[in-house]
Amino acid sequence: MTNIYIISGPAGVGKSTTSTQLAKQFKQSAYIEGDLLHHMVVGGYLQPWESEASLTLTWENIADLSINFVQARKHVIIDYVAFPEEVETFSQKIYSQVKHVEIKYVVLRVEPKELIRRDASREKDHQMGARCLELAEMFARKKIDQRFVYDTTTIHPTDLNEVLLTIRNHSRFIY
Amino acid sequence: MTNIYIISGPAGVGKSTTSTQLAKQFKQSAYIEGDLLHHMVVGGYLQPWESEASLTLTWENIADLSINFVQARKHVIIDYVAFPEEVETFSQKIYSQVKHVEIKYVVLRVEPKELIRRDASREKDHQMGARCLELAEMFARKKIDQRFVYDTTTIHPTDLNEVLLTIRNHSRFIY
Repeated sequence: MTNIYIISGPAGVGKSTTSTQLAKQFKQSAYIEGDLLHHMVVGGYLQPWESEASLTLTWENIADLSINFVQARKHVIIDYVAFPEEVETFSQKIYSQVKHVEIKYVVLRVEPKELIRRDASREKDHQMGARCLELAEMFARKKIDQRFVYDTTTIHPTDLNEVLLTIRNHSRFIY
Repeated sequence: MTNIYIISGPAGVGKSTTSTQLAKQFKQSAYIEGDLLHHMVVGGYLQPWESEASLTLTWENIADLSINFVQARKHVIIDYVAFPEEVETFSQKIYSQVKHVEIKYVVLRVEPKELIRRDASREKDHQMGARCLELAEMFARKKIDQRFVYDTTTIHPTDLNEVLLTIRNHSRFIY
């Protein structure tokens, strides 16, 4: 069985760190950074929130890469702001094209105060400022099934092993 | 008609600069950096020259992204060390799945002396050293159809416009 992990949540919540460390735990794995695929568009570039079509295109690209990696027997870790409706479309495509694959959807969450604190502790270039909270509020409004939400407010960011074990071992994240 | 440009050649020849500038010239375009796709593999990572399977996987990923971008009416610029046999397999996949698309294959070349000079003028982290010449020799040994080869030895690297115009306007690069 090959797994696809979708590591979602607002900016500043630790998606990249969690995803890259998770990818390193498998003998065969691939790490797909959604932002990086989105930024492949040069002429006519639009932010994901400015254009539904551009976001759809990025998700198609994420899905096609995931299918190729799964067929090569690699676990896939996707690091992207993924809302339930996007995960639903993505999952339908994956399950229709590959077998013996299990998708896990993890929405990382931290309390607003802690989110701001963590954002401020990042390098200046990577700080998102107010955008962190906006995205966190968007996630809150989506009323995401709580079983997918993983609150890491009280877990120190350097103590990742507990987070990785929980993501790998808990069936509540299975989509 | 949508174009896919494969900008190939040994390391140090100016693939990235040429590709990114070319991508900026179109209203709708996407820039695919092959190395970046290849590095999505984390667990079980192998260099392209160490593993045929890993290289095949990267080309499948490049092809699937290209198809999605072409279907979204975007010109595609691929920046990667691409040999004729890879371009052949790639082209067959593209032409079997999308219409109204034209593939151009450009193998940039500069004389060894100039290649070393340009490599040395790059940031330390990006210098390839002897690997530049090895790759240049590999390209020479492949006896690539000369119409695809574009020698830019005498063109100053900052004078890119001439290079971009030649790539865009010459039919000799059509695969």
